[in-house]
Amino acid sequence: MSILVVGSVAFDSIRTPHGMVDHCLGGAATHFALAASFFTDVRVIGVVGEDFTAEHEAVFQARGIDTKGIEHVAGNCFHWTGEYVENLNEAHTLQTDLNVFERFQPKIPESYRDSQFLFLANIDPVLQHQVRQQMPRVRMVCGDTMNYWITGHKDDLIRVLHDLDVLLINDGEAKLLGDDANLVLAARRIMELGPKTLIVKHGEYGATAFFGKDSFPGVQHSQFFRAPALPLAEVIDPTGAGDSFAGGFFGYLASQPKITPSQLKRAMFYGGVMGSFAVERFGTERVRTLTREEIDQRFASFQELSHLDAE
Amino acid sequence: MSILVVGSVAFDSIRTPHGMVDHCLGGAATHFALAASFFTDVRVIGVVGEDFTAEHEAVFQARGIDTKGIEHVAGNCFHWTGEYVENLNEAHTLQTDLNVFERFQPKIPESYRDSQFLFLANIDPVLQHQVRQQMPRVRMVCGDTMNYWITGHKDDLIRVLHDLDVLLINDGEAKLLGDDANLVLAARRIMELGPKTLIVKHGEYGATAFFGKDSFPGVQHSQFFRAPALPLAEVIDPTGAGDSFAGGFFGYLASQPKITPSQLKRAMFYGGVMGSFAVERFGTERVRTLTREEIDQRFASFQELSHLDAE
Repeated sequence: MSILVVGSVAFDSIRTPHGMVDHCLGGAATHFALAASFFTDVRVIGVVGEDFTAEHEAVFQARGIDTKGIEHVAGNCFHWTGEYVENLNEAHTLQTDLNVFERFQPKIPESYRDSQFLFLANIDPVLQHQVRQQMPRVRMVCGDTMNYWITGHKDDLIRVLHDLDVLLINDGEAKLLGDDANLVLAARRIMELGPKTLIVKHGEYGATAFFGKDSFPGVQHSQFFRAPALPLAEVIDPTGAGDSFAGGFFGYLASQPKITPSQLKRAMFYGGVMGSFAVERFGTERVRTLTREEIDQRFASFQELSHLDAE
Repeated sequence: MSILVVGSVAFDSIRTPHGMVDHCLGGAATHFALAASFFTDVRVIGVVGEDFTAEHEAVFQARGIDTKGIEHVAGNCFHWTGEYVENLNEAHTLQTDLNVFERFQPKIPESYRDSQFLFLANIDPVLQHQVRQQMPRVRMVCGDTMNYWITGHKDDLIRVLHDLDVLLINDGEAKLLGDDANLVLAARRIMELGPKTLIVKHGEYGATAFFGKDSFPGVQHSQFFRAPALPLAEVIDPTGAGDSFAGGFFGYLASQPKITPSQLKRAMFYGGVMGSFAVERFGTERVRTLTREEIDQRFASFQELSHLDAE
């Protein structure tokens, strides 16, 4: 079934210990859409400027992603400049040029209205809420956010959280939003704010799903599920790993006729798999050449590295 | 088969966000021995002072641990005073009173010489090496160390590493010893120094085993295995979690007639299980009342929280 994603389509200039790139295609919606496109149909809502050319459009087309909802306006794309020093889990923003993103008003094309799955990537929670309101019959809503909105726009954010089935954030964000250094206690407080399921990404250590009340049919309240990450000798560029995780997770769920506890666990593994590919090259480079066969091979190696053998 | 452990038998005064205790029984050899005693016979080499009474001896006896190798001398036991503030993965040492431990010279009782498994807990690598030399026919040697020895006594430590089958340390120690912020690269460098297998403990995120050349029969070089940790709402006292992990891991291996790749994976899970119990109460309190049935129940829940369902 189709996923609708709303978020940034952007250019990133990134420096890591392995090199640097200037103005490579990025943005949360881009990374999410590319990862999810291996599992299901994806539709994107975003805004781009005149520097978004046919060459960039082709990256989406090559993966069969519907870009009707990407609005083209005068000016330049959102441009993020950042670097990773020693700790590859933490980006240091050097410059943020919002450009055309500053006046972004998501518009939902008529042909997108039957989307059953909605992913609200990390943007202003006011916009996330507007999109959510326009998609009342969507089957499942998953969202992301970041420290900036948690700290400075909490009321707007809480209105969004109220409407989420799944919130997907990282450790630091979870502890900040849940206001507790203990992740389990932070998770409980976050789920009281609305999300029925909370997925916390731990970077190189994998991710944990916390299931709240009425989370998913068949899943017990207060249960956990933990998916591993692949220990990697080379992390070339961590940018987009979290959105690729979200794309793998939500894309896999959207591709299933029924969401069972078993499928949820597999979705967590696919999230980890897509995140592990994303960091192997700068920007979207690795995902562009990726095949479904490679994905399934890595899925098997994730199982191998975390599963006990049958007795 | 019997495990011989050499290390500290001590008293700890600990403050955590959940309270404080004064002079509770602790020490690496104590935590290791108690955890391992649920799986196999354990023999301890250490030194204690006059403040180590029959009441403390009884803790070992209740678990059937052989304490013939614990030497009683004049003075007081090693006493560590520390606290955990927000980050429960990191202890702040407030005071270290070596006391009788300052002149510790491990002596191996004749009846211990047929031990097949040797655990060198975190002590001066010169002593670790001496003990190792006196047990030439031991089947498997596992060791621990800490930043203090890595930074200030590296040559002594490297002599010990050369003789280890398994080195069990935490993330920070591994990155320091392997001199690389990337864990996989740090692990490779550490294994070049001797240990055939490196197990890195990630606290609340579990642990990873890195298998080097000639690691274990049937295990491929460069393979990984990752065991989860239980996400806990209450970590009362993290002291001894790492040694309890080691006790569960090594105790389980020593109890097996043959060490296969499958048993190694299960040993990692048992390590995580024993670590998760250790932190539930101050000092050795939780482990003293623990039953094998509780251990197996938690083992099953570790599987549940990390394993995909069969398709």
